[in-house]
Amino acid sequence: MGTSLPSAATASDITIGPIRGSHKAWVTATTVRGEDLQVPVRRIDLTNGHHLDVYDTSGPYTAYGSAAQVHDLTTGLPGLRGDWAHNEAVPADPAVPGSPLVRTQLAWARNGVITPEMSYIAARECLPVDLVRDEVARGRAVIPANHRHPEAEPMVIGKRFAVKINANIGNSAVRSSIADEVEKMVWATRWGADTIMDLSTGRDIHETREWILRNSPVPVGTVPIYQALEKVDGDPTALTWEAYRDTVIEQAEQGVDYMTVHAGVLLRYVPLAAKRVTGIVSRGGSIMAAWCLAHHTESFLYTHFEELCDILAAYDITFSLGDGLRPGSIADANDAAQLAELRTLGELTGIAKARGVQVMIEGPGHVPMHKIVENVRLEEEWCDEAPFYTLGPLATDIAPGYDHITSAIGAAMIAQAGTAMLCYVTPKEHLGLPDRDDVKVGVITYKIAAHSADLAKGHPGAQQRDDELSKARFEFRWQDQFNLGLDPDTAVEFHDETLPAEPAKNA
Amino acid sequence: MGTSLPSAATASDITIGPIRGSHKAWVTATTVRGEDLQVPVRRIDLTNGHHLDVYDTSGPYTAYGSAAQVHDLTTGLPGLRGDWAHNEAVPADPAVPGSPLVRTQLAWARNGVITPEMSYIAARECLPVDLVRDEVARGRAVIPANHRHPEAEPMVIGKRFAVKINANIGNSAVRSSIADEVEKMVWATRWGADTIMDLSTGRDIHETREWILRNSPVPVGTVPIYQALEKVDGDPTALTWEAYRDTVIEQAEQGVDYMTVHAGVLLRYVPLAAKRVTGIVSRGGSIMAAWCLAHHTESFLYTHFEELCDILAAYDITFSLGDGLRPGSIADANDAAQLAELRTLGELTGIAKARGVQVMIEGPGHVPMHKIVENVRLEEEWCDEAPFYTLGPLATDIAPGYDHITSAIGAAMIAQAGTAMLCYVTPKEHLGLPDRDDVKVGVITYKIAAHSADLAKGHPGAQQRDDELSKARFEFRWQDQFNLGLDPDTAVEFHDETLPAEPAKNA
Repeated sequence: MGTSLPSAATASDITIGPIRGSHKAWVTATTVRGEDLQVPVRRIDLTNGHHLDVYDTSGPYTAYGSAAQVHDLTTGLPGLRGDWAHNEAVPADPAVPGSPLVRTQLAWARNGVITPEMSYIAARECLPVDLVRDEVARGRAVIPANHRHPEAEPMVIGKRFAVKINANIGNSAVRSSIADEVEKMVWATRWGADTIMDLSTGRDIHETREWILRNSPVPVGTVPIYQALEKVDGDPTALTWEAYRDTVIEQAEQGVDYMTVHAGVLLRYVPLAAKRVTGIVSRGGSIMAAWCLAHHTESFLYTHFEELCDILAAYDITFSLGDGLRPGSIADANDAAQLAELRTLGELTGIAKARGVQVMIEGPGHVPMHKIVENVRLEEEWCDEAPFYTLGPLATDIAPGYDHITSAIGAAMIAQAGTAMLCYVTPKEHLGLPDRDDVKVGVITYKIAAHSADLAKGHPGAQQRDDELSKARFEFRWQDQFNLGLDPDTAVEFHDETLPAEPAKNA
Repeated sequence: MGTSLPSAATASDITIGPIRGSHKAWVTATTVRGEDLQVPVRRIDLTNGHHLDVYDTSGPYTAYGSAAQVHDLTTGLPGLRGDWAHNEAVPADPAVPGSPLVRTQLAWARNGVITPEMSYIAARECLPVDLVRDEVARGRAVIPANHRHPEAEPMVIGKRFAVKINANIGNSAVRSSIADEVEKMVWATRWGADTIMDLSTGRDIHETREWILRNSPVPVGTVPIYQALEKVDGDPTALTWEAYRDTVIEQAEQGVDYMTVHAGVLLRYVPLAAKRVTGIVSRGGSIMAAWCLAHHTESFLYTHFEELCDILAAYDITFSLGDGLRPGSIADANDAAQLAELRTLGELTGIAKARGVQVMIEGPGHVPMHKIVENVRLEEEWCDEAPFYTLGPLATDIAPGYDHITSAIGAAMIAQAGTAMLCYVTPKEHLGLPDRDDVKVGVITYKIAAHSADLAKGHPGAQQRDDELSKARFEFRWQDQFNLGLDPDTAVEFHDETLPAEPAKNA
């Protein structure tokens, strides 16, 4: 994957080294072919001689001891999965005669194949590999892993597994540079982002994405319609299926692991949003609604959906079927527009899975607490339990500046009900662009929501970290309390502010 | 209430003036005797010519235009209720022959009397006054209003009303001064604290409390055992009923509106906490457990409970029956120790209410999401639906530095299930003492939790603020979006960081 990249970012711009009180370690997983895989964990070392291993998303960056050890950012990370993906093409659905032959995790799982990715994931999740395969086969879990993104460490998104979180990053005409974006990815994954979405717009969009993909240890998602719109100078009515398709292929070749596609925004649903308090707030939804209305024609994403499936199947890219009509306010939650689109996403889920393509479903948005569970139940019923991937939801509209918190409440509840991945919200939501601190606060806040849900779901082993931290607290092992937390640096800083003397932390 | 106070705080130390984009206004309520009461609201002025009135806890401070207008802090606020509380003594429970004659909101409500406090509250809550009286009579709501705290603006705590929040303040040998504490009270109520608890320890504890009470527009709660312990030089085993009783009377005379009493920590329950991960984490619980074990005698709070009731009844002080055995970790949630104590609190609730004393029940603490609702159901069943008043609960233990967030998740859920008041948690929980910023973040975070629950419960009018804000957002009325939020200053600051140009906020 040695694409040449501009060398504007240097190793000294990148955050490296372990999180306080821990170090990177590896546990060995064995594939069904008997090969050993080294699976990373973050090992938290305790002052009582014990340690606790926790799930690690940070890639090699936390293992580097100095800038000199950092890999060449212009060539990117070594291709971890470079020699894994040699599985044969198999029928997309072996239960259906004449099913197309594809090379996707879904198809392999359905055909009983345990891939190296599944073995790696089982070790990461401390769960049986058969469970991984069965859940993927059932379509209740996805492994977003483009054949052309071998740098990523395999992970699974599904309700039987640890709840995952996504962090959005993206450049902007106003603030960012490419170097900033790579560091943002490193920064977000350092604190626990399981995937990142590159929502870049404007200049250098291809190069930004290339740089991120080559250096990202986690799956990368995109919204291809954003780049397609750039290609037609920002005029949604000038979009065509061909321009869109070519953009998808361009991104697929680069290695994007999952793509948000707003194929459920149908022409006839657009008027349903007219009487809303906040109309259509999804950018992709707005673009497609504008296109449908201008041409008075059904969405090309819908009419060309099968062709799109075949492109995604060729790379094993996972669909993230976007909720272009998601509610942007409490008033609009669970309304006719939102639910009409969700039904269509269910229809598209069936089409994609029949062609062997992995699918997850995006969800809202802004939803009051008493309407949250219904979102999960309907999604599961209509979309055949495809993994749900929600943005929050925000449980109230009245706290701009604190929407990481308004949404963490909704996120924890929707994850408890079965949502598999949570898209983070930062304190700058609705107000501006997140900076480095905002990204960290957003990630930590969403780790809290995800972990709270893991506890509530009785996820195996989840409570061990709570118990270790609480024991440390009870025994006044202050350093262990700090280091077992999601953000040791902030815990230490807060403690030192009021009780700076070193003995106070030991006794 | 003209007790002389040291003049260490001056008007210039106190935060005054309206919150951005709003001003104090008053609406008129009429008592059953035909008197007019002026009930404060915060009026948010919108750029489209409309306005929205929201519940206001800030007292006169947000109405002052300059330091010169501030009342004399040494004599305190005018006694708003000074000429209200002339109601006659009535039977504590008219259904029970021989019931003692008392002057409490509970007794008046049971006897069909609508007090001026109830009329004031009905106007504040925009609900019928009969509902206020009925809920208080039922013991499902309380009006914490010591006859000797006439400065407080009446408010109600009960599940049929808006969810309330409490902020703890207190001095400390390490950091605070008396002037700091008064300003902390003003600061906490400015942002929405419905009550405050003064948890001061050490020197000047009486004077600190006097200063706060005389200047507080909201009810003030305390934990008398803390001061009683000071009087015996910090040795729990040296405590006596007499020392405790005298402390309660001292605080009652000053005007404390509700008191936390850990009367449910019985001798036989102490061993139940022995095998816990985090033992007894409540300070009051630890004190009483130490006393019980040292004397091998039943708690004097339990054995003298009826006498205590009669003291509280004389002032109409509300019991906040403390959960001295609340869980301090996820591992200990809903365990035998916690639930044994809760049953005893139910027994004590019946005793107090028979004597006309208002009661609320304190709850945890640290509880995983799936065990939250059970807390409310058991409290309602065992404690005759007395208002529940919980600390969080924290939905996970693993995020020191972010426990305002871990607990806001639990707080929103437990309030949705029926908890009437939430005790805030600041980012410094478990780590150090909250500063000014921490208090504000804690209050705003808990306003989010409380309002999210109001929405979920369909509290009348709650969604109007969400709708107004979302409409402003949709119409790019940036100033209105900022000002309708819980913290306009932070919203503006975040917006200006990335898009500082003034036109960007208007278009």
